[in-house]
Amino acid sequence: MAYLQHFYNPSDDDFPLLLARNQQNTGTVAEQVQTILKTVKEQGDAALIRYASQFEGASLSSLQVSQEEMEQARSLVPSDLKGALQQAYAHIKAFHTAQLPQAEHLEIADGIQLSRNIVPYQRVGLYIPGGTAPLFSTVLMLAVPAAVAGCPQIVLCTPPDKEGKVHPAILYAASLCNVGTIYKVGGAQAIGAMAYGTKSIGRVDKIFGPGNRYVTEAKVQVSSSCCAIDMPAGPSEVMVVVSDEADPAFVASDLLSQAEHGKDSQAMLVIKGNRRSAEIQLAKVEVELARQLEMLCRQDYLLSSLSSSRAFIIDEQKACQRLVNAYGPEHLIINLGSDEADAEFAQGIVNAGSIFLGPYSCETAGDYASGTNHTLPTNGWARSYSGVSTDSFLKKITVQKVTRKGLAYLGPTLLTMAEHEQLRAHRNAVSLRLGGDR
Amino acid sequence: MAYLQHFYNPSDDDFPLLLARNQQNTGTVAEQVQTILKTVKEQGDAALIRYASQFEGASLSSLQVSQEEMEQARSLVPSDLKGALQQAYAHIKAFHTAQLPQAEHLEIADGIQLSRNIVPYQRVGLYIPGGTAPLFSTVLMLAVPAAVAGCPQIVLCTPPDKEGKVHPAILYAASLCNVGTIYKVGGAQAIGAMAYGTKSIGRVDKIFGPGNRYVTEAKVQVSSSCCAIDMPAGPSEVMVVVSDEADPAFVASDLLSQAEHGKDSQAMLVIKGNRRSAEIQLAKVEVELARQLEMLCRQDYLLSSLSSSRAFIIDEQKACQRLVNAYGPEHLIINLGSDEADAEFAQGIVNAGSIFLGPYSCETAGDYASGTNHTLPTNGWARSYSGVSTDSFLKKITVQKVTRKGLAYLGPTLLTMAEHEQLRAHRNAVSLRLGGDR
Repeated sequence: MAYLQHFYNPSDDDFPLLLARNQQNTGTVAEQVQTILKTVKEQGDAALIRYASQFEGASLSSLQVSQEEMEQARSLVPSDLKGALQQAYAHIKAFHTAQLPQAEHLEIADGIQLSRNIVPYQRVGLYIPGGTAPLFSTVLMLAVPAAVAGCPQIVLCTPPDKEGKVHPAILYAASLCNVGTIYKVGGAQAIGAMAYGTKSIGRVDKIFGPGNRYVTEAKVQVSSSCCAIDMPAGPSEVMVVVSDEADPAFVASDLLSQAEHGKDSQAMLVIKGNRRSAEIQLAKVEVELARQLEMLCRQDYLLSSLSSSRAFIIDEQKACQRLVNAYGPEHLIINLGSDEADAEFAQGIVNAGSIFLGPYSCETAGDYASGTNHTLPTNGWARSYSGVSTDSFLKKITVQKVTRKGLAYLGPTLLTMAEHEQLRAHRNAVSLRLGGDR
Repeated sequence: MAYLQHFYNPSDDDFPLLLARNQQNTGTVAEQVQTILKTVKEQGDAALIRYASQFEGASLSSLQVSQEEMEQARSLVPSDLKGALQQAYAHIKAFHTAQLPQAEHLEIADGIQLSRNIVPYQRVGLYIPGGTAPLFSTVLMLAVPAAVAGCPQIVLCTPPDKEGKVHPAILYAASLCNVGTIYKVGGAQAIGAMAYGTKSIGRVDKIFGPGNRYVTEAKVQVSSSCCAIDMPAGPSEVMVVVSDEADPAFVASDLLSQAEHGKDSQAMLVIKGNRRSAEIQLAKVEVELARQLEMLCRQDYLLSSLSSSRAFIIDEQKACQRLVNAYGPEHLIINLGSDEADAEFAQGIVNAGSIFLGPYSCETAGDYASGTNHTLPTNGWARSYSGVSTDSFLKKITVQKVTRKGLAYLGPTLLTMAEHEQLRAHRNAVSLRLGGDR
């Protein structure tokens, strides 16, 4: 039995069909989210406490995680996990610190100074989904760049469990990043609370983080009216580009580690090479998929994801690159047999979230601890968005200082352009300053 | 008669009310735009040609501006305007070239290389509004950074006039920036065409540019489904912060040059100083407003804008800065009597689109030709967005190369984190690579 439907040298015209994502129907989701957002806007904290009871079955007396809970978390997290989080934290911090931009300064002419002030977002909101497993890694991926950028107010929302608690590993990861303001609020209501503000939760300037369809839809809805968001989101995905000599066990493990994220994940395989040897390679990968699947949990997720995953066999490098760019994968693993071959292939990639080069750069490394960010554009948005980085937490304000001499130099140009755009008051602001003969 | 309603030392609690923008009702606009977008998606070029007839009264045989029209434009633009556009182009290009980022490269540990590839958006769409005056300055503000970033495909849409022509100054500005693909399409339908693609117009990855309520609404709508946008937009605005010694004629001219943009523009004045002398200053500004108004056109725009503009007299520097940051002005002019005072004030500003320092840095300079970009966040969005810059046309793709040694070093952390997040396949991808004992 083959897990992956496969295609040989597909034509570029067929890319849209062959590379289609799992469809998401957001019809009723949009309406439900609209109602939740409206309720949060109107009723504030009371609505949040009611929703916590309704959706999480938690009876909350206070929305904010207490200092006591923060301290308890410290003792509840096992020491191996503490150590792992500390190493991941150090790597993520180092790479995101290297991303801090320099402010430009340019004297465009005598008397005309141009520059940009780099300022952090003042209030950012981080959303960490709930679910069966605590996503402490996402806490680091959002809170570290926020802290590196210098955001003075960092708020984190995450749904509580039935007992009204937040998983200690989430709290510990947040405390590593000095995020002390954590609210027990989940779902679309958390997005509403951060976008509009409530009595407990201050309104933020930008919201970051993954979530289910409700959270995603809520982010999109608030982004059109009052609050920026990191990016629209969709199910997670990987594209693995390999030669016919890549270790099939490695290849299968990467496809599977993507497929376990959710039922709608997608794991795409591209084998570059001639048809005959590539088909043999594909058969080996299929054998490994079967073998490894047996050892794994989440079988329903894995099988569901694989059923909408595909394999492509492509002779030519340029055609491979076109396929990758047409898909715009969140994660792109390139393993073509040598550092040079991998690097050359990567040079042609313009649409991808994050690239992993060579046999040992498994996605797990970037998901957790190498230092790159795992909050990446999915669902083809890599065409239009970069992943979260330190940049995502910084604004740039242009500044100009023009002296009388500078304005005199620029004057004729300004007067001419204002005249032709028929903006007399714009013209007046210049002529009046230069005339001096009022 | 006073043009500006004024307030003395307003309390922070009153900021939201006193700093409110002109309300825009987009109820029916949203529905109309939805219909237009759907029609363009379904009917493509045919819809665009029909809309050009319906909205612009233009009968088009081809949507694209011809090579002949481009060449004609060259001879139709007067030489003073050509010279002005060339100087503006040179300054904008120089400042936006200075903004080109450096790619980072970091060896986080032996065997773990992290970097970011900087790649331009592949296909960008620029929208230039129509109207009485040709907005050639906006062509430069969008096309220059797109070209500096290296975007391989730059598409420009702008509505034609009744004769089916585009103003030659628009075409000339575009040709300066090597933008050769210009379509005679305006309004929400232009946004739809660039977002979805039609037979003539290729789908783009990101749409830039200002526009009326329909264009703005269309940008917001497509941004949630298929195409990034530069930023949401609203009416233009300025905040002018001065001491009681600033030249009142300069101050009035800046307020007026903002007010002429449209009926819903807003021009806010902040006088820092003690009440008595500030009130005298305000009276002088009012006299100048009256005097200069008489010499200007667009009286309806000017008077309408001034009616929703306001003046504030504030004793304290910190309170002034809080007011500015609460407003988040698109344009902020600071003129407090000395370079030092201006710079010190600017240091405290975290929410603004672009800052103009000193008596001679009038907004007109930045609007046209000093080199800074005039596509800036309005309507309070300066909290959440930077203005358009070279960054806006670049994506960053993280890249990692992990060797076997690097993975061995990182292994324990990855295994621990994957285990605690209950992601077995993630764990498997690491253990299998390190085990080697399959």
